[in-house]
Amino acid sequence: MPDGLAPARIDELASALGQGGWIDGGSDDAAPYLTDWSRAFTGSALGVARPTDAAGVQATMRFAKSAGLGVVPQGGHTGLVGGGTPYSNANVIVLSLKRMNRIRSVDPLNYSMVAEAGVILHDAQQAAMQHDRFFPLSLGAEGSCTIGGNLSTNAGGVNVIRYGNARELVLGLEVVLPDGELWEGLRPLRKDNTGYHLKHLFLGAEGTLGVITAAALKIFPRPMRTACAWVATPSVKDALKVLEIARAETGDAIETSELITRRVVDMVVEHMDGVRDPLPSDSPFYILMEASTTRRSEGGESPQEMLEAALGMAIEAGHATDALIAQSDQQRAAFWQIRELAPEASQRMAKPRVTWDVTLPISALPEFYDAAAKRMAEVAPDAVFSGFGHMGDGNLHYSSIGDRVKEQREMLDRTLYDLVMAFDGSFSAEHGIGQKRIDELQRYKSPVEYRLMQGLKQMLDPEGRMNPGKIVRMD
Amino acid sequence: MPDGLAPARIDELASALGQGGWIDGGSDDAAPYLTDWSRAFTGSALGVARPTDAAGVQATMRFAKSAGLGVVPQGGHTGLVGGGTPYSNANVIVLSLKRMNRIRSVDPLNYSMVAEAGVILHDAQQAAMQHDRFFPLSLGAEGSCTIGGNLSTNAGGVNVIRYGNARELVLGLEVVLPDGELWEGLRPLRKDNTGYHLKHLFLGAEGTLGVITAAALKIFPRPMRTACAWVATPSVKDALKVLEIARAETGDAIETSELITRRVVDMVVEHMDGVRDPLPSDSPFYILMEASTTRRSEGGESPQEMLEAALGMAIEAGHATDALIAQSDQQRAAFWQIRELAPEASQRMAKPRVTWDVTLPISALPEFYDAAAKRMAEVAPDAVFSGFGHMGDGNLHYSSIGDRVKEQREMLDRTLYDLVMAFDGSFSAEHGIGQKRIDELQRYKSPVEYRLMQGLKQMLDPEGRMNPGKIVRMD
Repeated sequence: MPDGLAPARIDELASALGQGGWIDGGSDDAAPYLTDWSRAFTGSALGVARPTDAAGVQATMRFAKSAGLGVVPQGGHTGLVGGGTPYSNANVIVLSLKRMNRIRSVDPLNYSMVAEAGVILHDAQQAAMQHDRFFPLSLGAEGSCTIGGNLSTNAGGVNVIRYGNARELVLGLEVVLPDGELWEGLRPLRKDNTGYHLKHLFLGAEGTLGVITAAALKIFPRPMRTACAWVATPSVKDALKVLEIARAETGDAIETSELITRRVVDMVVEHMDGVRDPLPSDSPFYILMEASTTRRSEGGESPQEMLEAALGMAIEAGHATDALIAQSDQQRAAFWQIRELAPEASQRMAKPRVTWDVTLPISALPEFYDAAAKRMAEVAPDAVFSGFGHMGDGNLHYSSIGDRVKEQREMLDRTLYDLVMAFDGSFSAEHGIGQKRIDELQRYKSPVEYRLMQGLKQMLDPEGRMNPGKIVRMD
Repeated sequence: MPDGLAPARIDELASALGQGGWIDGGSDDAAPYLTDWSRAFTGSALGVARPTDAAGVQATMRFAKSAGLGVVPQGGHTGLVGGGTPYSNANVIVLSLKRMNRIRSVDPLNYSMVAEAGVILHDAQQAAMQHDRFFPLSLGAEGSCTIGGNLSTNAGGVNVIRYGNARELVLGLEVVLPDGELWEGLRPLRKDNTGYHLKHLFLGAEGTLGVITAAALKIFPRPMRTACAWVATPSVKDALKVLEIARAETGDAIETSELITRRVVDMVVEHMDGVRDPLPSDSPFYILMEASTTRRSEGGESPQEMLEAALGMAIEAGHATDALIAQSDQQRAAFWQIRELAPEASQRMAKPRVTWDVTLPISALPEFYDAAAKRMAEVAPDAVFSGFGHMGDGNLHYSSIGDRVKEQREMLDRTLYDLVMAFDGSFSAEHGIGQKRIDELQRYKSPVEYRLMQGLKQMLDPEGRMNPGKIVRMD
């Protein structure tokens, strides 16, 4: 406990936050807030504040200010880079937004809804659905992650090609600033050119500049029919041509376009029970692709027919060798199983594993893919290095699996990231910086850019109270 | 000329900028840079710097810094709020980006291109087209306005409902900072979560925080076929239902959705030669609506057929009373004429005119529309107050025409804007702040928000060099 922070003062905050609003940092109940779900990051805190409204968040921030404490905002705590986990021995409070979990309103004719930070992503999707609308953000953790975390990390996921990242789904924000003031910026407008757009300061800032307490989100006409295809393609270059044809010939209705390797298919089929290879063949690459339509009338062409026509053209042009269109929900689920079980299957290999999350310009994927395989094999010849993922937005998830990869990690990181940067890519596509990539941020950003980021941090949080030690270093 | 600024020093800058790089502020050639095209704003400057590359912009900024001058960045100078026009007697240089007008690259498979700030919007559209792609930003001034101006003002236009504002079309930026440093942020990536997204600081900042010199822009599959409809609808509320049905039943392919009143149709038909009413009737409102598809194969349903089906449903449900689908390019052009000639027709009425550009939540349009008509008639009973425009994104362009409206302007402004704010709207949808709306910005933004804007200005431009006196006040 920091100097001068009497227990009586904490009682004051706890009482302001009401029943269940405060968990002592030393109690068992605090454990899930101090260790992330992947168990890669663990830390400590004086306690966990769990307000149920923006006023409670303001009270917490004011308390932290007066007591000289840092604050680590936290949503579903499903991040992969330790952004929501405190450091050890840190003089901080965890601020959990999970109890701020109301959908405040859904406005179908404005294609918007207002959700509080603690709303589970899946619940936000459901709320839109109940009003015949669609909230397109979708990712593996959607049953546990929260809107506040999604926005603070600018989450990506599988629908980015059509709907953009989390940042692009936001019309307005409500934010508690480091000094406890409330910025009410929830106006749900499509056009608003009245000065600087402050929302973009807080989106993707991983809670280092303020606390997002609610958001006005874009929602869309609801897709009524979805077609799902599993496509064999001879190369990454051909895969991009398949995507190009499919985008044009479905009326740009492609929502998902995942690149999957023969190796991943084999791994999942081998290690996971009851999984079958949708299209046994020697093809080195597959694409899992979905197109949807919002049309509810049965007239006109179905997305299945459109996708079929597009893939027929791709096969004729030699960019695909074979393709299956799911004929049932079960078959669609079977295609998705391969993609979704890949992380678990690779864990079942029971070997040390290092992972990366990079983006490239989409057009650079073919050349990068080969260059990365070659370089990484030079550094760790015994390891199995492979990449797959969200081809449609240039985002590949790579892993290196082998007995010695943990020791080789630093050199592997450096080799891959140097190459990514040479191809004008990003060393963190959707997972963010958190604790894990702060060295890389400093290494790979230009001095000008790093200095601007420090300037923003200094301007908004001069006392360094917000999520201390994450993203930028201030010393 | 400011104290201590010897002519010899200006010669130095002029020579660094090369042939045609400097125009003296007192010469006739400087006039177009000192008065905006609508002739509502005029000012003065020491001269006009016209660099051809980022190094020239840096040289200009460094010169301005050493000489203690302000800098007014300028693109096509087609803005409507005086954002690109200097004030009178201002101790400034105009920095015209018009000669920085190269398309640096087009990357069709990455669906991106890099354009310099001075590229004319129409030329950017053409460059995309030549690579079988589409750059969707489209507005009245597209033959003269420039990409740098479009991005600095976060331009809107007619395709926002489907593609977003200018801000949303940007992947990366190259920016010269107030101190002359260059931030190279052009990586053309769809996912990049490596720290704060700096591009959003400069987009929409009207040149008050730095100078955008180039941008990596999103481009899209090219629409191959477009359907255009002219729809009669009994009320604003019904118009929104027509749009809802059309979005769903075309697979969300609506690109444009303009609300037009009976009064506007009558005014254009009366004052402009050769214009015919597409659908003579008593209907108080019409919708000009377009849907497009990127499909190049002729199979499947055409956008005409989809729009026809959707409008049939809307008529059946009583939300529309009649509809025409253009059967030729000529007919499509005739529909658009009504929309595009409206500003000119209202000028031909040869009466004093005051205009506004506001956004509302789309769902609030019906109630707001009636309330605004009522209030404005109370303030100026003799004037003709009417609004129409981009219904699909909640953006209405209003005007008040009458002998005394110029004298009544302050009260009219206040009445309309108070109402807009009460409905959670914006007092400047797409035109920005510039010189014209700085009072409103201070009045209608909360103190918290205004202070944050001042903080950004102070952080990025501590000497107040960039476009002085625009957007926020610093005293």
